[in-house]
Amino acid sequence: MSSADRGAVFLLSDYGERDEFAGVTRAVVLATAPGAVVIDLTHEVPPFDVRAGALTLSRTVGSLGPGVVVGVVDPGVGSDRRAVAVAVAGGPTAAGRSTPAGPGPRHLVGPDNGLLGWAIDALGGAVAAVALPASTGPGATFDGRDLFAPVAARLWAGATLHDVGLPIDPGSLVRLAAPHLVVRPPAGEGPAAGAGRESGVGEVEAEVQWVDRFGNGQLAARPADAERAGLGHLVEVTAGPERAVARRVGAFAELAPDELGLMEDANGFLALVCDRRPAATVLAVQPGAIVILRPTR
Amino acid sequence: MSSADRGAVFLLSDYGERDEFAGVTRAVVLATAPGAVVIDLTHEVPPFDVRAGALTLSRTVGSLGPGVVVGVVDPGVGSDRRAVAVAVAGGPTAAGRSTPAGPGPRHLVGPDNGLLGWAIDALGGAVAAVALPASTGPGATFDGRDLFAPVAARLWAGATLHDVGLPIDPGSLVRLAAPHLVVRPPAGEGPAAGAGRESGVGEVEAEVQWVDRFGNGQLAARPADAERAGLGHLVEVTAGPERAVARRVGAFAELAPDELGLMEDANGFLALVCDRRPAATVLAVQPGAIVILRPTR
Amino acid sequence: MSSADRGAVFLLSDYGERDEFAGVTRAVVLATAPGAVVIDLTHEVPPFDVRAGALTLSRTVGSLGPGVVVGVVDPGVGSDRRAVAVAVAGGPTAAGRSTPAGPGPRHLVGPDNGLLGWAIDALGGAVAAVALPASTGPGATFDGRDLFAPVAARLWAGATLHDVGLPIDPGSLVRLAAPHLVVRPPAGEGPAAGAGRESGVGEVEAEVQWVDRFGNGQLAARPADAERAGLGHLVEVTAGPERAVARRVGAFAELAPDELGLMEDANGFLALVCDRRPAATVLAVQPGAIVILRPTR
Repeated sequence: MSSADRGAVFLLSDYGERDEFAGVTRAVVLATAPGAVVIDLTHEVPPFDVRAGALTLSRTVGSLGPGVVVGVVDPGVGSDRRAVAVAVAGGPTAAGRSTPAGPGPRHLVGPDNGLLGWAIDALGGAVAAVALPASTGPGATFDGRDLFAPVAARLWAGATLHDVGLPIDPGSLVRLAAPHLVVRPPAGEGPAAGAGRESGVGEVEAEVQWVDRFGNGQLAARPADAERAGLGHLVEVTAGPERAVARRVGAFAELAPDELGLMEDANGFLALVCDRRPAATVLAVQPGAIVILRPTR
Repeated sequence: MSSADRGAVFLLSDYGERDEFAGVTRAVVLATAPGAVVIDLTHEVPPFDVRAGALTLSRTVGSLGPGVVVGVVDPGVGSDRRAVAVAVAGGPTAAGRSTPAGPGPRHLVGPDNGLLGWAIDALGGAVAAVALPASTGPGATFDGRDLFAPVAARLWAGATLHDVGLPIDPGSLVRLAAPHLVVRPPAGEGPAAGAGRESGVGEVEAEVQWVDRFGNGQLAARPADAERAGLGHLVEVTAGPERAVARRVGAFAELAPDELGLMEDANGFLALVCDRRPAATVLAVQPGAIVILRPTR
Repeated sequence: MSSADRGAVFLLSDYGERDEFAGVTRAVVLATAPGAVVIDLTHEVPPFDVRAGALTLSRTVGSLGPGVVVGVVDPGVGSDRRAVAVAVAGGPTAAGRSTPAGPGPRHLVGPDNGLLGWAIDALGGAVAAVALPASTGPGATFDGRDLFAPVAARLWAGATLHDVGLPIDPGSLVRLAAPHLVVRPPAGEGPAAGAGRESGVGEVEAEVQWVDRFGNGQLAARPADAERAGLGHLVEVTAGPERAVARRVGAFAELAPDELGLMEDANGFLALVCDRRPAATVLAVQPGAIVILRPTR
């Protein structure tokens, strides 16, 4: 297999770029596997935020070609948390796959703290997993350098899971709770009707799972959820004390300067958006906030 | 042609690095064209700022080797704005070319909103252009992933413009207004004498077209403009209510700690500079501000 | 020698990523040496902070494979400060070397202002050095593009020091003062007993030489220094008016939420740490601050 066919080692972390953590991790991949190609997905996951990292990773893997994915958001480094390498079935699911037609990554490497879980799902599920031996660097604070990068480089270069660790049950990998999403169809149609809800009106109650650089607020709901709840062209959006009306659109530029929009984004989720303004600021929402969508009256 | 001869796919965007947009774009280039080399120019163009992106791109292309340039500052994504790929004459102009001796990029890809215009000029002008078909990803918000990266990768790998889109008139590409610059020679010498100008004194009225990380303020004027206006070794600088005297120097280190300098920068423009201090802060100027340079009295 | 065997051109600078400086430097490496691999160590050294850059570089070189290291933190660009390329003995010292087993970089390139010194030490010391000719770009502000990247690319591709500059005495390279560290053994044991110190008690007086993204404060002291000073499991930490007790631990996760720790970090230094909180904020210390460690009473 040529180097080009092996694809890349893809890196995601909360290391940031202001220190040398990410740079050293890149360098160790190359030092371990001369000829390896490194692609940085992002190193700007908020510090220690395993959940944000897991969501980010799950959004990217459908766009990746062959290779090895390394995720490092690892507040438990140096503790007895497991470090793992996981083989996936390959071929992301329809939900996860976006542009490229070819095969995706076959291995993921990182701490066993839930970071890799949704990415594994999107890549067809784990078919095998190993626990990695503890790293041996001075200090126990930089497993990106001392453990994950070397292991990923070896896997990239052709090593098998068996070469890098001891088998574990893939079913034992740590899982995070799914983002909050409740879809309530209009009255009488579904089982999820809750107290205090207006009679006859459907609603979507969804977590804001990502606020991007532009201030778009990605919800844990998809267009099909809006249809199930009977939402129309105009949607009432409630976020804590804030309330606004959003219009369903297909592009930012369809919105008036002061208008709020609800749009399917590039990951297939509904997102609160504005035209060249941060929608998340308008509604004062951050990741983890709960938003309720209802038909306008 | 070997991979090395093909050069790189060069990326500029306003995606930032805190989300995965830039990383996914990199990955899609590689997934589409195994063996492709990706060089990030910058992804930190201010959000939606097409003009800043166009200026940045124009400053870089003279330093690039062969390959394909992708620019994505694209608030109109998903609207009916055109997406384009452009072939250039090759060989940047004397003004645009800096270090390397070999050939530069031959193709540029991006939205048709003016972002690519000055870079195209610096690379000898457009010789052909095509409109790209609309992307087909879920949601219409991420053409870097769904359209520009795949097209650029195909061009890098040897595809022709004809393979990726339908011919359009290169003269129809959107153009931005040039940065503001008026040079007024000393009295009686030129046609641009304006009301309120002191009799007999030349001046340069120039836009601040860039404030860099270090606080240097690049003006839309070159040393030759200062000569035409009859400016000498000491220059009076007016920026709105602020007024200061700047000394013409050839290096930051020639300046005293509290001194303002006016220096030719690495792009051949005049820049307001200090020694290890942000000159832009001293004068309270931002990109787009107008600065007037006159001889000191 | 194949491209893969040549390793990479490693870049460190204070250019940041918000402008195109780093991107252009990357591109010039590739334009000068087609096939070269570029690895960014970091470009986010604080502007003009030669000392921070030198410390950062010294922490990275032990993890690098073969190739050429470029460092650019260069407030004297355009002045008569020398620009240099340096060959090192190869094989970093035990102190500097971390993960990879193979050979490290053989050349370093940058301004002669102390930036490269500690990295040179960590790579076995300079065996030869040359002064580079002045760059010839427009303006004298961007030697990364005009001088350092082209020279590094040529060295990567096989040029010798003799090909790129004129020999100078490696002993003449500018050196920075070492980070502050005084270790005072318990009374009667050492020569460094100072006025005002409590009778019989040892102490470590050390500079905070790095505060990383996570707020960990790396001291210029190693675990052996703590042993020499007779520090035990609990350590009193004084930083200006702040005083706290730190517990010696081996992992962040061993600490209670409100506890301060003292831990050997991935560079073999003692670091002030918390669990998922910035220890530097707790003690209000920044790089350059002096911290005193004493046994608790």
